[in-house]
Amino acid sequence: MQSLGCDVAALNTVDFSNHTGYGQWTGTRSTPEHILDLWSGLKQSFLDDFDMMLSGYVPGAEALGAVGRIAEELKSRAEGRFFWVLDPVMGDNGNLYVGGDVVPVYRGLAGKADLCLPNQFEAELLSEVKITDMLSLGKAIEVLHSRYGVPHIVITSLSLPDDTDPDTPGNKKTLSVVGSSMTSTKQPRAFKISFPAIDCYFSGTGDMFAALMVVRMREAVCDASTSTEPGLDTRRSWLSEDGVGALELPLARAAERVLGSMHEVLAKTAEGLEGRLEEMVRGVKTGGVNGNGNGNGNGNGNGNGEGGIGKKQMQVLKSKAAELKLVRHLDSLRGPKVVFRARRL
Amino acid sequence: MQSLGCDVAALNTVDFSNHTGYGQWTGTRSTPEHILDLWSGLKQSFLDDFDMMLSGYVPGAEALGAVGRIAEELKSRAEGRFFWVLDPVMGDNGNLYVGGDVVPVYRGLAGKADLCLPNQFEAELLSEVKITDMLSLGKAIEVLHSRYGVPHIVITSLSLPDDTDPDTPGNKKTLSVVGSSMTSTKQPRAFKISFPAIDCYFSGTGDMFAALMVVRMREAVCDASTSTEPGLDTRRSWLSEDGVGALELPLARAAERVLGSMHEVLAKTAEGLEGRLEEMVRGVKTGGVNGNGNGNGNGNGNGNGEGGIGKKQMQVLKSKAAELKLVRHLDSLRGPKVVFRARRL
Repeated sequence: MQSLGCDVAALNTVDFSNHTGYGQWTGTRSTPEHILDLWSGLKQSFLDDFDMMLSGYVPGAEALGAVGRIAEELKSRAEGRFFWVLDPVMGDNGNLYVGGDVVPVYRGLAGKADLCLPNQFEAELLSEVKITDMLSLGKAIEVLHSRYGVPHIVITSLSLPDDTDPDTPGNKKTLSVVGSSMTSTKQPRAFKISFPAIDCYFSGTGDMFAALMVVRMREAVCDASTSTEPGLDTRRSWLSEDGVGALELPLARAAERVLGSMHEVLAKTAEGLEGRLEEMVRGVKTGGVNGNGNGNGNGNGNGNGEGGIGKKQMQVLKSKAAELKLVRHLDSLRGPKVVFRARRL
Repeated sequence: MQSLGCDVAALNTVDFSNHTGYGQWTGTRSTPEHILDLWSGLKQSFLDDFDMMLSGYVPGAEALGAVGRIAEELKSRAEGRFFWVLDPVMGDNGNLYVGGDVVPVYRGLAGKADLCLPNQFEAELLSEVKITDMLSLGKAIEVLHSRYGVPHIVITSLSLPDDTDPDTPGNKKTLSVVGSSMTSTKQPRAFKISFPAIDCYFSGTGDMFAALMVVRMREAVCDASTSTEPGLDTRRSWLSEDGVGALELPLARAAERVLGSMHEVLAKTAEGLEGRLEEMVRGVKTGGVNGNGNGNGNGNGNGNGEGGIGKKQMQVLKSKAAELKLVRHLDSLRGPKVVFRARRL
């Protein structure tokens, strides 16, 4: 976000040694008191003039409540000139990775957000609609707009059996992102962007999607040189007039650019990944994971003896090898090529 | 650092709402246990393969000890291929802003660092030499090299009465940066870079200098296209052969580039600063610091009544108005023009 020109203040909701994709980590979660203490510190020094907020991983229900309070305060006094992007991080592929008590808190907060970015599993948890096909997907979006009142939704990483796409023929696996900005009567205006899946387990793609959406949504709405609806940035939740179709939505244009960046970074990360992993495995076996003999020699004791690599260590090394190559590819963030286009759903 | 391509992991030594230049803040200091816990988390997942470390503000003696332990561990196993940039943040202009017990810890750590970046006051604290003129300055550098064994030193923000410089004639105030890389017999090779002072109180210039020095020092030593001493990156502390003169040092070339970036960013930050400050003052008086009517109305109660601005609030607003405009001027970080040249001291 900073490399794209955003002046960002980060409020840490956890202070961990590494992301949880490694399967092990140390550090602490921020308490709700700490989060609100930092917020009051920002306020007392007039450092609370945010026009957008992005909230992500908050592992506890009470801490999430504190984050929600901050968003509500910002919203209530900004008179429409504040935009909250809520990434309701709860889990993926059927697994919860926050406490179960976090789910109802997100259900309560979703309607206060301007843009909500659940993945498929999270969209199911929020809408209480099991998404198995295009029909149930439509239903889930409808529920999020009409029951919760979420103005803009993007469901990231959908994988549906009936999701065929002309752009990715053959047996290549297709993933989709589905977005919608509601009309004044809370009707969906839904679009779909499909792209070929990269067969690799990346961590942080949700965070990357969310951060880039903040930048691109703002650009599509507020930047006079790219905005197609003058004055949209002064309208509540940046909701386009009813006459604007799904494919003309700022949300669709933003998502196209975001997916352009993401595909470039993921493809570049996947390049040579196997080789990096093999080198790391060799390094651990010979006592120096980085291949330069400076290994730390404190493997976590679940190796299978004789220089073997345990299952837990393997997860760690795979996570490390698949770390998104962001700072080496800032150009992909700054000037993505749009190759995957939105289609009407 | 990330915008310049460095893959950075941050280990927070404090978690504050804002920098302490505001005179008020909330949040917590990291305990030494927390710092070492995060470090062990990094190690157990093979995420400790750092080739450089930059340490900055650590407000407690025990926490600083923990940071020093991390540096020593990294150094001991990297066999020369690790470079520690130590910014011994203790105070400025005669005022300590850490506990007094932090000072001896820095004295103990300085000799383990590869590059030490004290300001004038900190150089005095470390060397126990009061710097009042060019002679005492030379003495301080000598002590840091010979008694402490610090390989590379840059003293930032020197302001000395006999420091005249042909580049900044007239009554413009001149500041200098003085650097030195020691020879094999711990003799100084000192240079000076002078530049016109910008009459404004900025915060974070020390942090900015340190972060950019990490990038530029690495570039000057390790980047085959810019390095003038092949193999220097494999030598302990990247110390140039004795035949290399002060002005040919990678340290001098790095500092020139850093000062080029800094001068651009500071000049751009100073532009329109008075106007921004006046607008903020008006905003606070009318209840909305940002001029858009969304003020938080929780001034800290030391105003002088009738819409006046108290001394404490004024410090806050001045700090906010002078926040370095970094993300809007990434080009100045990436491609600085070198305008201030090193001279032999």
